[in-house]
Amino acid sequence: MEIRVEGPGTEAEPVAVTMRTPGGDFELAAGFLFTEGLIDGREDLARVSYCEDIPAEEQHYNVVTVRLSRPFDARALRRNFFASSSCGICGKATLEQIEVRCAPITAGPVVKAEVVAHLPEALRRSQKVFARTGGLHAAALFTKEGQALTVREDVGRHNAVDKVVGHALRAGLPLEDSVLMVSGRLSFELVQKAVAARVPVLAGISAPTSLAVRMAEALGVTLVGFVREGSMNVYSHAARIT
Amino acid sequence: MEIRVEGPGTEAEPVAVTMRTPGGDFELAAGFLFTEGLIDGREDLARVSYCEDIPAEEQHYNVVTVRLSRPFDARALRRNFFASSSCGICGKATLEQIEVRCAPITAGPVVKAEVVAHLPEALRRSQKVFARTGGLHAAALFTKEGQALTVREDVGRHNAVDKVVGHALRAGLPLEDSVLMVSGRLSFELVQKAVAARVPVLAGISAPTSLAVRMAEALGVTLVGFVREGSMNVYSHAARIT
Repeated sequence: MEIRVEGPGTEAEPVAVTMRTPGGDFELAAGFLFTEGLIDGREDLARVSYCEDIPAEEQHYNVVTVRLSRPFDARALRRNFFASSSCGICGKATLEQIEVRCAPITAGPVVKAEVVAHLPEALRRSQKVFARTGGLHAAALFTKEGQALTVREDVGRHNAVDKVVGHALRAGLPLEDSVLMVSGRLSFELVQKAVAARVPVLAGISAPTSLAVRMAEALGVTLVGFVREGSMNVYSHAARIT
Repeated sequence: MEIRVEGPGTEAEPVAVTMRTPGGDFELAAGFLFTEGLIDGREDLARVSYCEDIPAEEQHYNVVTVRLSRPFDARALRRNFFASSSCGICGKATLEQIEVRCAPITAGPVVKAEVVAHLPEALRRSQKVFARTGGLHAAALFTKEGQALTVREDVGRHNAVDKVVGHALRAGLPLEDSVLMVSGRLSFELVQKAVAARVPVLAGISAPTSLAVRMAEALGVTLVGFVREGSMNVYSHAARIT
């Protein structure tokens, strides 16, 4: 799916192409722009739609145009992409870029460890396409009491997170008081997305990377990995887990 | 890690940046260039080395320069990258690009199903860093009798495959008569890499994507998924599995 962005009175510009599982396309587009720091919140979104210039066959549904309520700065886009592409060279440069863009998260809920321990089971119960195919990742947003607010599946972990965050953004769900749970490993990109979405607790059933731990520590995110069989590892900002 | 390529008498050009697990860096660089169709074989490789222009501190080991024995065509690089980036828009365009670049594989070994069924266990026994961290993917090249030729681990599945293929390329191992086994899901990019490396059988313990199956069917690759608990699904060119 290609994501295009246009400001008032300006042409749509392609900003990203992602290999996604169809479904939740508007959420994915909105969530991607939010978690990549290209929009600041719901008030920036004027309209999300499939591209009208393309005939209504297969490709029509593979191009989503986001119209902003304010001018779109394509230079900010290129700055952000430079930050991402430099990650393999130097995690430090990436950390500095993200820190400039996002203030660390200082607030957030306190969550019982028992609640976190039950999230994988709750996530798995909601993975309807995974149950049929065995091939999809999932992400879900939970309240601090462990109630599921929204669950999304996608072939890519990052897309699943963007769909969840995009839905929360559009529906006005309380991201800043929630726990984000993912089915796979915890990459630094997921920490970056959590920070941009102001989600204070990020949990997963598998391992984090070392860069994810450093980024979570620097940016105020509680990172919880290996949540399985009643156990978990808390890698950063452990005061939010009791 | 950044991969740079230079021809005889030309400046090194950056061609890719990848988030990798350190180790096997020269294999990764050689394998990446081979599986992405940027070199045709071992005879194109004059030298692989860490970048000499960078002081020997941390970053020195994050930049690898590949010197070719023939001129490097940066335009071919951009054509290939265009093919990759169009994948989300239209799998058909990607298939056509790959088919132009690579002839379908017609030869290859016949492998017993019992041999394939034992590969996940053999792979797992070799995953030394996974055993300590739980966070890495692995890839391995096996003979048709199930003997491991080479095993590599990396945070990314695609990197693990590139390291295995790069080692095989540099060591002169028989790629065209082997089975490539991966620890994760089977993406179309992995099929593409198998085709470029002329590996006829690609197996994995988890699901393939629909595009991976279409590409394997079109390009002569035997694709085997969900190899677990003595069972497996063969998705394409099943005549190679008896």
